[in-house]
Amino acid sequence: MEFWSFPPAYDENFLPEAGDRYWFPSRETMPVVERERAIFERLKTVCRYAYEHAPFYRRKWDEAGFHPSHLKSLEDFETRVPVIQKKDLREAQDRMPPFGDYLCVPEGEVFHIHGTSGTTGRPTAFAISRADWRAIANAHARIMWGMGLRPGDTICVAAIFSLYMGSWGALAGAERLGAKCFPFGAGAQGMSARCVQWLAMLKPTAFYGTPTYALHLAQVAEEERISPRAFELKYMFFSGEPGASIPAIRDKLQNLFGAKVFDCGSMAEMTPWMNVAGSAATDGMLCWQDVVYTEVCDPTTLRRVPYGQRGTPVYTHLERTSQPMIRLLSGDLTLWVNEPNPCGRTYPRLPQGIFGRIDDMFTIRGENVYPSEIDKALNELQHYGGEHRVIISRASTMDELLLRVEADQETYSNGAAEIEHFRQQVERKMLGVLGLRSVVQILAPGSLPRTDFKARRVVDDRAVFREIRAQIEKTGPGAAPPRWPDGSIGPP
Amino acid sequence: MEFWSFPPAYDENFLPEAGDRYWFPSRETMPVVERERAIFERLKTVCRYAYEHAPFYRRKWDEAGFHPSHLKSLEDFETRVPVIQKKDLREAQDRMPPFGDYLCVPEGEVFHIHGTSGTTGRPTAFAISRADWRAIANAHARIMWGMGLRPGDTICVAAIFSLYMGSWGALAGAERLGAKCFPFGAGAQGMSARCVQWLAMLKPTAFYGTPTYALHLAQVAEEERISPRAFELKYMFFSGEPGASIPAIRDKLQNLFGAKVFDCGSMAEMTPWMNVAGSAATDGMLCWQDVVYTEVCDPTTLRRVPYGQRGTPVYTHLERTSQPMIRLLSGDLTLWVNEPNPCGRTYPRLPQGIFGRIDDMFTIRGENVYPSEIDKALNELQHYGGEHRVIISRASTMDELLLRVEADQETYSNGAAEIEHFRQQVERKMLGVLGLRSVVQILAPGSLPRTDFKARRVVDDRAVFREIRAQIEKTGPGAAPPRWPDGSIGPP
Repeated sequence: MEFWSFPPAYDENFLPEAGDRYWFPSRETMPVVERERAIFERLKTVCRYAYEHAPFYRRKWDEAGFHPSHLKSLEDFETRVPVIQKKDLREAQDRMPPFGDYLCVPEGEVFHIHGTSGTTGRPTAFAISRADWRAIANAHARIMWGMGLRPGDTICVAAIFSLYMGSWGALAGAERLGAKCFPFGAGAQGMSARCVQWLAMLKPTAFYGTPTYALHLAQVAEEERISPRAFELKYMFFSGEPGASIPAIRDKLQNLFGAKVFDCGSMAEMTPWMNVAGSAATDGMLCWQDVVYTEVCDPTTLRRVPYGQRGTPVYTHLERTSQPMIRLLSGDLTLWVNEPNPCGRTYPRLPQGIFGRIDDMFTIRGENVYPSEIDKALNELQHYGGEHRVIISRASTMDELLLRVEADQETYSNGAAEIEHFRQQVERKMLGVLGLRSVVQILAPGSLPRTDFKARRVVDDRAVFREIRAQIEKTGPGAAPPRWPDGSIGPP
Repeated sequence: MEFWSFPPAYDENFLPEAGDRYWFPSRETMPVVERERAIFERLKTVCRYAYEHAPFYRRKWDEAGFHPSHLKSLEDFETRVPVIQKKDLREAQDRMPPFGDYLCVPEGEVFHIHGTSGTTGRPTAFAISRADWRAIANAHARIMWGMGLRPGDTICVAAIFSLYMGSWGALAGAERLGAKCFPFGAGAQGMSARCVQWLAMLKPTAFYGTPTYALHLAQVAEEERISPRAFELKYMFFSGEPGASIPAIRDKLQNLFGAKVFDCGSMAEMTPWMNVAGSAATDGMLCWQDVVYTEVCDPTTLRRVPYGQRGTPVYTHLERTSQPMIRLLSGDLTLWVNEPNPCGRTYPRLPQGIFGRIDDMFTIRGENVYPSEIDKALNELQHYGGEHRVIISRASTMDELLLRVEADQETYSNGAAEIEHFRQQVERKMLGVLGLRSVVQILAPGSLPRTDFKARRVVDDRAVFREIRAQIEKTGPGAAPPRWPDGSIGPP
């Protein structure tokens, strides 16, 4: 197995031949049983390392009655090692600021500090050592190679460079790959229009960002009378939010830009976050198990679910030495399979990517609803205007669901009858997808604010809901409400 | 002389002892004559290299009747090599997109693409090779060492990561120095408040940004009831705009943050831009001549002015191989001296930093006025509210100058008499500094928009001027004008 050691020690000058499909053929295509045997050995090493270096793990495992010497099989790992959660990390950093008592290297080896960008509560700081940064760069370069990226490609990284690790990880990979890196970033006023100008001028071969931002860029381009296809992008890879694995959104992105679309990404804490990522010949996302060991688990028992079933990913670093995460509960929702992959890699696969959060899920009249399913269904409608909001109420005697959906310009301009027709179409679609009735209101295209980062489309607020419901009953669909909780402007 | 070669080949593992004052003692403290001899040899090499690899230089020099073999002395360089200007670079990139016919390495060696962020006209793309990036990192680390920064310091880079090279160069230097890098960035909505939270939590030892942004951050901190001194910064280094060398602004920054303030920076095209930068024991900026050769020139003759005189810097790369700039005219304004430096480095010095632009300068009634002089004078007034605008008219029979100046809260709250008193004080000060009368209008503190990047405070518009002048005459100072060209809200 190529360069398989802990701590990792990659040859920084290694590059496959341009025609090679694999960066590391044996690591990527080896029989699953053999890989699992190697992963099990590595898990023993990583657990011993964490127990010795991190009071955080020692305390947690002592409490749970686990000791690294107990590991005799992969099943032991899954059943005896307790999961950790993001709140455990926050608490550890509160106890021992700024990096928590799970930093396993001397502070002097910290190379980059990043973190969560949450605006409320204590943010979590990520301390990434110099050696880890190299391991991340090597992993990302290898996974980007799997998408078809090659030295000489120009890669535009169009996500904000700040606390967020998405942009930095993509850049580190692009740098290691020997690509021409164009770290344009995102987030400041006026940047989208400038990005469009540069994409048209520079014609990079690849683009990284969030799906929401790419859709926004396409819109900005069209406003500037530039076709997104004029950028001549060949590859677009995404993380930061689900989307690139939702067929309707993926197809939309592919059609708009004429590029092949890849979904990637686990969690900021799990850097290298491309440990789940698509490859040139395989849709969805592969779990690159030799970088980060992924178990898709039942959210209650926290044990692996059989392939073919839904669950939440639980991740374990196999290469990170600074702040190794061991059985970090993601809270995301996915489905995994283990079938032969067209690309020949023998990794398990997430055919639908990450399609929701366990805690995003809401229950209405006994039905489990994932916001991503609503997004997916709306994107399948021809006259969908591109943005929507979901407003839910759980506290009334009867749960209710309000959908505020933009129509496209054509439908909206054609007047009340067409708007009403589209409204009924949305209602029927939602009934089919969700198995329950919803109240649908149609908005003019562009009336809901777009975001250049992760889209938040669900508002769960009883009081607001009642107010809006009353408005709609008083004035009928299409009327201007006084003020929406999502900051949008109502239709004229 | 340590590691003096072309192309550069630095030992990436080299670090001085923590107690050492110099990174490269002999390069930094050698007799001027010896250094100039070495620089002259290097200039011959660089000119030959450019002539051989860049049609851009070949054409330009052939036209000017210059050939690298003509170089027999430093004076030949100054008198026979024509300057190049930013517009020459734009034209070259128009002719041969995207990098122009002055790219001297194969495109495959391009590591990072950055550029000018101008919103009008064709932006200029910078192609920086992998080898150049290492040279930049080594130069910046060495110059930051000169400020007193050491491995183990935590360095917050609080400037936008995008086209702008300032943030990237500071980061590359911090990485090479072995510091803990905290690339927070800037520019997106809500980032300043988050930056304040992180600075208070992480307590980095050093900060990089623009002076304007640091002043803004201090204000945001105070709004959040956090003293900027609670960040416990020891070093703050700045570029992107003049300011850190203007005594009043430097003192203000030092007082607000309790940190030592350093000024740095030449031009984005001149990466490594820290080729002019302050050091721990020496105020102003040193010209690190062995990295980039700086000639302070008469703007007309484009020949060096004697030490002690004002002129415009003309820069020449001595280490850059991808897009070497040879006699690039900056258009900036400075004054240089060549006296023994307290730090012992034998470089020429810019004691007042870069204090203006040749083309920012405007002439009113025969007087040359630099916006930086107005900025400096206002910052010396106790009751200055921190922001101002300059509105000039050159086309009337008599040139006029309108200053819109914020008072501090105390003055503004104390009513008309105090406001008028402050107004007269500003008028007198301006008369003293500029030698001409101006119309001064006092505004409430906070009424002019702040910027988190380079401040643009001069508006040159006759029509607007006449309109505002009429308003003031009609309503008297302190009245609310209908609408200001700088987007500000008038006083209530």
